[in-house]
Amino acid sequence: MVNETQHSSASSSSKSDGGSSSGSEGSKDSSRCSTPVLDADRHERLREKMRRRQDSGDKWFSLEFFPPRTANAAVNLISRFDRMGAGGPLFIDVTWHPAGDPGSDKETSSMIIANTAVNYCGLETILHMTCCNQTKDDITGHLQKAKRLGLKNIMALRGDPVGEEWEEEVDGFNYAVDLVKHIRNEFDDYFDVCVAGYPTGHPEAESYEEDLKYLKEKVFAGADFVITQLFFRSETFFKFVKDCQAIGITCPIIPGIFPIQGYHSLRQLVKLSKLQVPQEIKDVIEPIKDNDAAIRNYGVELAVSMCRELLDSGMVHGLHFYTLNREVATTEVLKRLGIWKEDPRRPLPWAVSAHPKRRVEDVRPIFWASRPKSYIYRTQEWDDFPNGRWGNSSSPAFGELKDYYLFYLKSKSPREELLKMWGEELTCEESVFEVFTCYITGEPNKNGYKVTCMPWNDDPLATETNLLKEQLEKVNRRGILTINSQPNINGKPSTDPIVGWGPSGGYVFQKAYLEFFTSSEIVTALLKVLKKYESRVNYHIVNVKGQNITNAPDLQPNAVTWGIFPGREIIQPTVVDPVSFLSWKDEAFALWIEQWAKLYEEESPSRMIIQYIHDNYYLVNLVDNDFPLENCLWQVVDDTFELLN
Amino acid sequence: MVNETQHSSASSSSKSDGGSSSGSEGSKDSSRCSTPVLDADRHERLREKMRRRQDSGDKWFSLEFFPPRTANAAVNLISRFDRMGAGGPLFIDVTWHPAGDPGSDKETSSMIIANTAVNYCGLETILHMTCCNQTKDDITGHLQKAKRLGLKNIMALRGDPVGEEWEEEVDGFNYAVDLVKHIRNEFDDYFDVCVAGYPTGHPEAESYEEDLKYLKEKVFAGADFVITQLFFRSETFFKFVKDCQAIGITCPIIPGIFPIQGYHSLRQLVKLSKLQVPQEIKDVIEPIKDNDAAIRNYGVELAVSMCRELLDSGMVHGLHFYTLNREVATTEVLKRLGIWKEDPRRPLPWAVSAHPKRRVEDVRPIFWASRPKSYIYRTQEWDDFPNGRWGNSSSPAFGELKDYYLFYLKSKSPREELLKMWGEELTCEESVFEVFTCYITGEPNKNGYKVTCMPWNDDPLATETNLLKEQLEKVNRRGILTINSQPNINGKPSTDPIVGWGPSGGYVFQKAYLEFFTSSEIVTALLKVLKKYESRVNYHIVNVKGQNITNAPDLQPNAVTWGIFPGREIIQPTVVDPVSFLSWKDEAFALWIEQWAKLYEEESPSRMIIQYIHDNYYLVNLVDNDFPLENCLWQVVDDTFELLN
Repeated sequence: MVNETQHSSASSSSKSDGGSSSGSEGSKDSSRCSTPVLDADRHERLREKMRRRQDSGDKWFSLEFFPPRTANAAVNLISRFDRMGAGGPLFIDVTWHPAGDPGSDKETSSMIIANTAVNYCGLETILHMTCCNQTKDDITGHLQKAKRLGLKNIMALRGDPVGEEWEEEVDGFNYAVDLVKHIRNEFDDYFDVCVAGYPTGHPEAESYEEDLKYLKEKVFAGADFVITQLFFRSETFFKFVKDCQAIGITCPIIPGIFPIQGYHSLRQLVKLSKLQVPQEIKDVIEPIKDNDAAIRNYGVELAVSMCRELLDSGMVHGLHFYTLNREVATTEVLKRLGIWKEDPRRPLPWAVSAHPKRRVEDVRPIFWASRPKSYIYRTQEWDDFPNGRWGNSSSPAFGELKDYYLFYLKSKSPREELLKMWGEELTCEESVFEVFTCYITGEPNKNGYKVTCMPWNDDPLATETNLLKEQLEKVNRRGILTINSQPNINGKPSTDPIVGWGPSGGYVFQKAYLEFFTSSEIVTALLKVLKKYESRVNYHIVNVKGQNITNAPDLQPNAVTWGIFPGREIIQPTVVDPVSFLSWKDEAFALWIEQWAKLYEEESPSRMIIQYIHDNYYLVNLVDNDFPLENCLWQVVDDTFELLN
Repeated sequence: MVNETQHSSASSSSKSDGGSSSGSEGSKDSSRCSTPVLDADRHERLREKMRRRQDSGDKWFSLEFFPPRTANAAVNLISRFDRMGAGGPLFIDVTWHPAGDPGSDKETSSMIIANTAVNYCGLETILHMTCCNQTKDDITGHLQKAKRLGLKNIMALRGDPVGEEWEEEVDGFNYAVDLVKHIRNEFDDYFDVCVAGYPTGHPEAESYEEDLKYLKEKVFAGADFVITQLFFRSETFFKFVKDCQAIGITCPIIPGIFPIQGYHSLRQLVKLSKLQVPQEIKDVIEPIKDNDAAIRNYGVELAVSMCRELLDSGMVHGLHFYTLNREVATTEVLKRLGIWKEDPRRPLPWAVSAHPKRRVEDVRPIFWASRPKSYIYRTQEWDDFPNGRWGNSSSPAFGELKDYYLFYLKSKSPREELLKMWGEELTCEESVFEVFTCYITGEPNKNGYKVTCMPWNDDPLATETNLLKEQLEKVNRRGILTINSQPNINGKPSTDPIVGWGPSGGYVFQKAYLEFFTSSEIVTALLKVLKKYESRVNYHIVNVKGQNITNAPDLQPNAVTWGIFPGREIIQPTVVDPVSFLSWKDEAFALWIEQWAKLYEEESPSRMIIQYIHDNYYLVNLVDNDFPLENCLWQVVDDTFELLN
């Protein structure tokens, strides 16, 4: 949000809500209380969250990002969403980039970046939308699409003129207020709507007072809250809020904060927004304009002291940050203000999607634990099985296996880096064992490179996996190629920094789990050993052709993570589900080829080794049901090796 | 089943299935695997259970009862169902008593006795039905009613003639085979159908061979299995089975066993069934005919040795016992045969109903733990909430509070006995405390009578309550009048004889629970004390007028019993549900008046004391959420008394 003019203009049209899910949230009101409300957050709309935080005096912040220009930058931005999401923003917002085909399905479009933030990163998200230079139908189409994707919040803007001169659009909207009215007419109360406020008046407005009137019109047309353009002095904001209140604007007004991060970015922003930089700031910056670090330090100081004034005034409950897609300065300001709250406690063991339909999701198969975005992607059309349990029937509506085409799931590392990690040249199966072992240990491989990712892991090794490191190293060295595991946990507090999740005062439990690829020779021995553990260990063994061996009773899911909380029903967010395992199997085997084998030339020995493993190895999962006893899965593996010797 | 003629006769009519729930079992096939199949038994029909037991070589038995003549006898028979049900019969059957208005709603009718066995005692039940002297419409009506009540099995019989001579019914059926055909025509495969076989031929049949042909007709008309008339020698049965097989009868043929229990009952039976008692039996019995015990001992010996021959032959997988509504002889035979299997392990902590719709029930509020029949009665029309969770909405379809009219819930003891236990004359509230205390301790009251039941308890004190006896005694003495409690359990094996339930290899857990009536003075102090335990203890306090104090978050249910089993989802069969508590409250308060106050004259001091408690006391429930720690509820109560002193 950099520049915008507002004028009032009446507009109304017939309802054109795509009707996809206007009442869909209500349909969750079944008799069954199957999703205990772990945190009210998941069920509130943004304006309610804002109100609740204001009532409780709990200060919050939000973060603005713009859509990146390149696909690589998009991958990096999504990682940034994950990292900055950890600090607990109330929401993020994604600007509307008219030149970037903002409503399209491109990886870099505003729509898709916002979609990713909501659905894959689980962040409450506002999508900006401008109305100039677009037809009414275009705009309705964008809004319908946003709704379909699970976006619940729109920042309604006019947008900047294409050329120097402002031209009215014939069959469209010319002012933000038109867009607000249109949203309310067409989508009733579905969206939370935000509008822009200008503490020093919009540069194109006739006067500061006129501009305040336009803001009032936008609010009275149905906006829920206001975010302001950036400003350099807290008094500017205080005066603005008082002037707004004086003319009857009572909704929340959130100050937009711009930590100065560099000389050039400041200059450009000032030029675009036609703001005046105060002389005292210019005086400091000019002498150090070539020293980026010094400017950033100054910018952080300045932002921190202004934010303190704002928060101390009692008039401000939340701060909105223009991040310019950068991480360091904003994070630093937030940490120094003490409102960056990295809460190690998770509402569930996996990240909850912010999609209105998916917020109630309460169970997932464990298999996608290291590929959560893939799980959401493959189940995005999934209306019938939001509970992660597939019963004994086959699983309709489970996304086709094409997720290695999902852009954000592609490896973040370029081919050359992957080759350094996973081997420029593989000579035998053992060189593959070595890669797995290095990933587990964190030690450099024989060429001196650390293996920081694997095809089956979006993220670095989970902290709790460290609890198993020593055993994992041992078995990977011998060809038990582990891709997923968890230790058994017998009633740790829900606040435990490593394995805890859910509200405080509860207890969490896990059954030990181990999932790996291994050769048919090892599987043959393993099956003999498992006879001894028949009543204790559940297993499921499958190869790429679908040969399938399991002792799961009636193919029922086995709960492997659960929690007991004060005043709640039992929550069991992770299961080993024998039916979904067959879908995961397709994905797990395909990753050998799509992410690893294809790094090498066709017919090359390296590629043929991976292909051989893909064609001949088995994927195995083991659950030790006796969670109060010492995990027996390592003994099972030891017994297997012993039998082989 | 004592006497019956069979002749073939074609009969067919239009479908008249009441249509109440033909496909209702299928409607459970939702996506959700919310009821883990704990034992296949619950989901099989009788003929499948029989087949599975035959395949596994697991011998079984069944028990035949007749409807009693008086209401008191009916109450006793139901208690007998509970006691003999504990031995693990594959099914029981209830004979059709034409003179007793068998299809009516009378407490003593065949239909209602069978209904009670299925729904309240959780026993697989066969209802006998005879067809003579009834119109086709009558019979269809009976079958529809049986289906509506949850009965799944019919023993199709002709019935005995009313007078000495046999008269054909004009608009009805004259032979059992007509009834079998009618059942199959009108109800397809809904019922499992059983027919009678006569090892020595039916007394009215032209010949043994003719009679076998009639049996074959009945089987070929759609009967699933045969139960035989009693016989005195195992060879009789072996010959009969071979003869049946020779003419193509392949369904199971179950021998009917009659342990001789007395001289007169034998003579009467023999007269009715026109059987010949072998001379060697007569020789033994005649000399001891006045010694009941001796005859019964002989009868047990005889039955045991014949049953052994039957079982050893390999031709017999189950034994059907004509109990004559008596317990001792049959139980003795079964125990000596080693097929009486009192399994202390329960599939769930409460008795599962055998009603086809209710078998899948997996959660109940804890409040009815001591009044399970009342819970089933009040929820019998309950299609929407079979999961025991009522959500935050009010609870439609929950039976009106009139269950003290439910015959079988009436106290088994007559008024005089209740007065001896609960006091001929109450002088003050403390005399009520004394009654509660005596019930807990098992000590006689001051008039020397033991208090073996209370209005809130169908059954004697549960074994696990003994774990809490000492503390319960202490608090009841001081006016905390406990009616329900359970200790906390932190992961005991599911096979634990006291607190275990569910399949072996699992672990069961409980949160400590305490429910009691108490005065407003104590409640006031309690509420102060509970502030200290706010995050640990959930409470719910209500009086008869509905004044209601709780800290249950969002009125969500709190799971207080759960189990973790190999290869299963978590099972949480008992919850404290704040919504259903308000329905239980009405019942719990009403029991003071209906079962206790009304023992005394109106306006009598005793009655006024109970009325005072009813009008002024509060009903309180407490849950200690910290199940791994020592139960803090006693501390809460102690703190309360301390505050009062």
